[in-house]
Amino acid sequence: MNNLAADDLIRQALVEDIGFGDLASEAIFAEDHMSQACLIAKDNLVLAGIKVFTRTFALLDDRVKITSHYQDGANIRAGEKFAEISGPTRSLLAGERVALNFLQHLSGVATETRRYAAVLKNRGPIIVDTRKTLPGLRMLEKYAVTVGGGKNHRYGLDSLVMIKDNHRKAAGGVLPAVQMVRNKLSPFLKIEVEVETLEQVREALQAKADIIMLDNMPLTLIKEAVALIDHQALIEVSGNITLEKLEDLAESGVDIISSGALTHSVKAADISMRL
Amino acid sequence: MNNLAADDLIRQALVEDIGFGDLASEAIFAEDHMSQACLIAKDNLVLAGIKVFTRTFALLDDRVKITSHYQDGANIRAGEKFAEISGPTRSLLAGERVALNFLQHLSGVATETRRYAAVLKNRGPIIVDTRKTLPGLRMLEKYAVTVGGGKNHRYGLDSLVMIKDNHRKAAGGVLPAVQMVRNKLSPFLKIEVEVETLEQVREALQAKADIIMLDNMPLTLIKEAVALIDHQALIEVSGNITLEKLEDLAESGVDIISSGALTHSVKAADISMRL
Amino acid sequence: MNNLAADDLIRQALVEDIGFGDLASEAIFAEDHMSQACLIAKDNLVLAGIKVFTRTFALLDDRVKITSHYQDGANIRAGEKFAEISGPTRSLLAGERVALNFLQHLSGVATETRRYAAVLKNRGPIIVDTRKTLPGLRMLEKYAVTVGGGKNHRYGLDSLVMIKDNHRKAAGGVLPAVQMVRNKLSPFLKIEVEVETLEQVREALQAKADIIMLDNMPLTLIKEAVALIDHQALIEVSGNITLEKLEDLAESGVDIISSGALTHSVKAADISMRL
Amino acid sequence: MNNLAADDLIRQALVEDIGFGDLASEAIFAEDHMSQACLIAKDNLVLAGIKVFTRTFALLDDRVKITSHYQDGANIRAGEKFAEISGPTRSLLAGERVALNFLQHLSGVATETRRYAAVLKNRGPIIVDTRKTLPGLRMLEKYAVTVGGGKNHRYGLDSLVMIKDNHRKAAGGVLPAVQMVRNKLSPFLKIEVEVETLEQVREALQAKADIIMLDNMPLTLIKEAVALIDHQALIEVSGNITLEKLEDLAESGVDIISSGALTHSVKAADISMRL
Amino acid sequence: MNNLAADDLIRQALVEDIGFGDLASEAIFAEDHMSQACLIAKDNLVLAGIKVFTRTFALLDDRVKITSHYQDGANIRAGEKFAEISGPTRSLLAGERVALNFLQHLSGVATETRRYAAVLKNRGPIIVDTRKTLPGLRMLEKYAVTVGGGKNHRYGLDSLVMIKDNHRKAAGGVLPAVQMVRNKLSPFLKIEVEVETLEQVREALQAKADIIMLDNMPLTLIKEAVALIDHQALIEVSGNITLEKLEDLAESGVDIISSGALTHSVKAADISMRL
Amino acid sequence: MNNLAADDLIRQALVEDIGFGDLASEAIFAEDHMSQACLIAKDNLVLAGIKVFTRTFALLDDRVKITSHYQDGANIRAGEKFAEISGPTRSLLAGERVALNFLQHLSGVATETRRYAAVLKNRGPIIVDTRKTLPGLRMLEKYAVTVGGGKNHRYGLDSLVMIKDNHRKAAGGVLPAVQMVRNKLSPFLKIEVEVETLEQVREALQAKADIIMLDNMPLTLIKEAVALIDHQALIEVSGNITLEKLEDLAESGVDIISSGALTHSVKAADISMRL
Repeated sequence: MNNLAADDLIRQALVEDIGFGDLASEAIFAEDHMSQACLIAKDNLVLAGIKVFTRTFALLDDRVKITSHYQDGANIRAGEKFAEISGPTRSLLAGERVALNFLQHLSGVATETRRYAAVLKNRGPIIVDTRKTLPGLRMLEKYAVTVGGGKNHRYGLDSLVMIKDNHRKAAGGVLPAVQMVRNKLSPFLKIEVEVETLEQVREALQAKADIIMLDNMPLTLIKEAVALIDHQALIEVSGNITLEKLEDLAESGVDIISSGALTHSVKAADISMRL
Repeated sequence: MNNLAADDLIRQALVEDIGFGDLASEAIFAEDHMSQACLIAKDNLVLAGIKVFTRTFALLDDRVKITSHYQDGANIRAGEKFAEISGPTRSLLAGERVALNFLQHLSGVATETRRYAAVLKNRGPIIVDTRKTLPGLRMLEKYAVTVGGGKNHRYGLDSLVMIKDNHRKAAGGVLPAVQMVRNKLSPFLKIEVEVETLEQVREALQAKADIIMLDNMPLTLIKEAVALIDHQALIEVSGNITLEKLEDLAESGVDIISSGALTHSVKAADISMRL
Repeated sequence: MNNLAADDLIRQALVEDIGFGDLASEAIFAEDHMSQACLIAKDNLVLAGIKVFTRTFALLDDRVKITSHYQDGANIRAGEKFAEISGPTRSLLAGERVALNFLQHLSGVATETRRYAAVLKNRGPIIVDTRKTLPGLRMLEKYAVTVGGGKNHRYGLDSLVMIKDNHRKAAGGVLPAVQMVRNKLSPFLKIEVEVETLEQVREALQAKADIIMLDNMPLTLIKEAVALIDHQALIEVSGNITLEKLEDLAESGVDIISSGALTHSVKAADISMRL
Repeated sequence: MNNLAADDLIRQALVEDIGFGDLASEAIFAEDHMSQACLIAKDNLVLAGIKVFTRTFALLDDRVKITSHYQDGANIRAGEKFAEISGPTRSLLAGERVALNFLQHLSGVATETRRYAAVLKNRGPIIVDTRKTLPGLRMLEKYAVTVGGGKNHRYGLDSLVMIKDNHRKAAGGVLPAVQMVRNKLSPFLKIEVEVETLEQVREALQAKADIIMLDNMPLTLIKEAVALIDHQALIEVSGNITLEKLEDLAESGVDIISSGALTHSVKAADISMRL
Repeated sequence: MNNLAADDLIRQALVEDIGFGDLASEAIFAEDHMSQACLIAKDNLVLAGIKVFTRTFALLDDRVKITSHYQDGANIRAGEKFAEISGPTRSLLAGERVALNFLQHLSGVATETRRYAAVLKNRGPIIVDTRKTLPGLRMLEKYAVTVGGGKNHRYGLDSLVMIKDNHRKAAGGVLPAVQMVRNKLSPFLKIEVEVETLEQVREALQAKADIIMLDNMPLTLIKEAVALIDHQALIEVSGNITLEKLEDLAESGVDIISSGALTHSVKAADISMRL
Repeated sequence: MNNLAADDLIRQALVEDIGFGDLASEAIFAEDHMSQACLIAKDNLVLAGIKVFTRTFALLDDRVKITSHYQDGANIRAGEKFAEISGPTRSLLAGERVALNFLQHLSGVATETRRYAAVLKNRGPIIVDTRKTLPGLRMLEKYAVTVGGGKNHRYGLDSLVMIKDNHRKAAGGVLPAVQMVRNKLSPFLKIEVEVETLEQVREALQAKADIIMLDNMPLTLIKEAVALIDHQALIEVSGNITLEKLEDLAESGVDIISSGALTHSVKAADISMRL
């Protein structure tokens, strides 16, 4: 986590919501009016983002005090009161919605990730995210995936070399594509090759790719690819991963399963803040 | 839409994804290598954000040309190819993921909103969003809600006065709370009062609130409130609105139904960009 | 007030003034040299912006301590010493000009507003500002207007729908213009219609506008309009409002008088900071 | 003028005014609806800021075309139509207020400055501004002062060394203060000394100050100081300069007259944009 | 290269240099005064940054035209005229210094890197940079290293896992440290272990580190380590690398030689722009 | 020094280095794991930037405590331990590289400057920097020059008027060029004229330039110019100043010697931080 970058995001979200001011609260509450509040889970959830929640209020007003009974990663049951907040009422109300928007989204990511991670537990493959994140929120969403028990695929276009279909065609094959990358780029980065056929798997192996991504392959083909690769590279499978498919993949011998839905189609965790 | 603010968001998302550079493409494609691509709907969807999609590439490279066969608001069927993109391959690949992240999210919002709007069509109430938006994306999400046939609740804490439970208690009742607001604030803003009981409805009417929000009331109580209010104020209902509940509410006499899920729990529209 | 947005403005102003450094003070004062200073009103004024003043020094150096004998809104007489400042001399001198530039401008706005508000006191109409604010300073200027006893017209193009001449013509009349707005926009926003003739007043009433703005009408016409409107909408009058005109308007039955001069032609309050 | 810095200011002002969007215009005008408009002076004025005005629209929409019949510095008479604007109606209306806020303020500065400059014309002293500028607007206001025929005092704390009262006392006199500055700072900057007595004038001369500022001195004392200084340094007078005082000062032998009111108490030039 | 991020840097540098305006040129050159200029190498150099140079002028004024006879990576001999620039004189002079500051620094990095790369050519090891870059300039400096024939070490703390001395001690050894990393982090990132003894080399091999960095080891120890590692991991050597040491290391069997001096102690390439 | 501007630079550098997070440290160190570290000079150096170093950690984590045994300007000998740092290990490691990048660069500038200043000590001329600074780092580099015993040439294009070759030609001579500047610009700024011949020196004297810059003149010509100028203006010499040339120039009668190499070709001071 880069806290300075997180602060920038939180500040941006607060300015977006507060605009010219919190009209109702400024008209009704005296500046020194104090309140207590608590956070309540209205459904079972995996907590993620309690520090972002806390930091949202801290950026508004350093008099707000927050005590959380849980840390990120905890399973919280529906109905549980899991944090106490106290401070100037104006600040509690001005920060409430933004702080919850972060917390509910990140806990939503973590909760869904844990469902996937639970299926895979101790069975070999890990679940990872993708670059299909909501604009501006990638760092936080990827953090929430790790809280839920997943791991992170590359952060962006600069943290892993991914040879896709178009690269292969433009270079004249997987091997020349990887060669072009090796000639120009850093040996500190891994190279992953996206493949659709066993022939391409062979090429990727020949090119000594670090990771081979089996793109939208049927399960039988996946199994053939796994046998062919035989631990010479890490194997990722990708493409509309559902909880049902996960069961099949869990024992297929692949190493990594990636799912865009963990971040692009998140159901917010149901949390309310009660004053 | 504030295009300057949208540009800032798009630029931020591009920098987030590209980081130090698009390693694979810079190694493999010559700078003047050109490609064509198209957008394909992989599921039925309501298009929203085609200008944001277009602008994402424009900010990267003004040589990218995009022709969309549809405008925002169009229903697109699964399998349909709905836009053509051409330009330098490096720019198409560098912008692809970010442009799609915006387009899929916004079309997801519009698609879900239209399902709600369809139920309500010509039956009285309208469907509106809330402040439960993803941090940084409020303007775009609220735009997508209108594309889907919904309307926008307030943009932030400064564009409508909302008297909630806490305000009422601190002021000593709905009437004094509204009075405090009227004394201090602009007559150019509407005042909405959140109520939980019929007694509070009466107070809100007495205070001449512009809008009365029935918070999490059961349907029978809603109907009593509607009768009591009798067109003296607009009526909003809120609280875990589902498509099922919508049917009941459609004929209940309320004016506005608000749903946080339209923006906080969005399933991304399934769109792929094929080079 | 949005304190985070205010901080950004203050920081921008400090960087603008300090540039590469406060040359004279850095050459002459040791870093731990301390001073006291006070604020003196050199003319009668209404204080506005004492928190912005305080925050200016806080952003520079948290060792600066400020005690104000008055809060925003107080009438301060010429010659009165109204605040004490102490802290590192370098910081007092580096922040002095910027802090005063804010305080003198905002107190100038409040002082002028109070002259208008005093004329109108208990006579019906209120005085409000406009969007004719100095670029970047709208939030602070509008705050100062409320300190002076005025209220705020809309914050920007998104917080009230204003149907002007051009909208009316393009839509084919006031009624269709309002209808287009109602079809597309949120019911949470008020609609104001700018009119120049009684015929247009009638149209605005028919369209159930929330507010009708009588643009640059002579007093007799204003009175006819007031009679015609007969409390069916709020009435705003606008156009080169002077203190003299105010007297006539005070008893004319209008609700709102708006003046751009409150913010676009402000005489700075005369305040000096003496070390 | 630093155009990149000016663009940042303009963009900030547009975002401030447009917020989430120009509600009325987006509801009523089609995106390709075109309009013409013109700028009309409603009072005599000195034009300043026509490029900032033009740039405001350019940043919104490059299809807006503006033809000005005058350049900055021109005297425009009340009633004169001095510029034509054409382009998409939405963009004309979205940019109108911000563009005018800049133009009216800057023309107001230039108009007032020219009144001062006219008095002084060919009589010796020049009129200059101060650091009493509106936060964020210093560069533009100082530009407008030059348009009106004035010159600029220092831009900020880093572009001239000003030895004030406090510096003198802390250093133990004018001479040691100037010596400390010369020891540490660049010989590329001028040194100005603020004085209140003839004794201090003598010290400043001895210290070879480049400029001596006579702070709030009565006219007779100013004349004595002028005689004493006898062209060994430039002489600035400062302190509540009015047009009346200017007449006396014009022949007093001083070189520079500075006035904060040129920028801190500006009456906006009366300009309207008519569609 | 991330062009949007580069633009931000260039804009920041222009604002830093221009401040309130280019005083001399604005006073002397008419706005439409045109000039030609050329770039001349005053010493042998490797060109790097010609696009940044070009972009600097483009951000100031799109009328400036630049033709470069060489692309980045070209060897240019002292005395050679290698680019032509034409456009408005004011813009040429306002952008000259900043554009050259970038070009001279980046060409300096590339020129020095090529000296290292030339020694190593076809002999096995590659030369790479470090995180010892000048604040704010990392992306551009790392780009210049590649232009000179080097490759890039990690971009930042997030693009490679580096286990240093402190990590090893805190974790209780190399093996547990790597294990902790593997448990938490992405398999898409390589792991490098910094070692100082052969015992640590053995631990790193056991932990299956991707890269082993021999930190400040004497040449004989390096050779023992190379033998021990025997191609089971990539080998980096680091620590005050000079051209002299390079000769010894070239045949030592290591894969990667990293040098902070490539970016932290750069002699600017001698280039002048002549109008 | 403008601390707010410095903070922006430091924050930018931290975000650049940390990216999505410090992967290794977050995986291995508990959040409350504490460490001590010290700064050691590995070569003789002049310390510059200890406050920037300190501030780098403060912006990351206010629990980091730093005690420096020296202040900026101190000569530190190779091997000396000169500062102690303690705090959370994660923060020490996350800030280490950025803090050192600043400190080593600035101390490098100061160390080199002092070598120049030492030659000139008490012999008349002073050593100054130029605008040949690294993009974004001008304020800090110029500060480091003063720490090393140099002084600052102008900060940017707005803090001194420099009449160069092109200005002279466009204006039709030095005299008309200076006249144009005096007509338009502030008397608060000095005017420097760049000359290449004695004829131009005479013109500059006639124009009463404050400073005359002898551009790349041979020593004999410099001496003739010095005699000709005869203290009527300050004299600057410029152009590939080396320590060797400095000796000759020291007694030549010039006032100012400027060197771009002080900032554009800096060897980082060798400092290490040991945990």
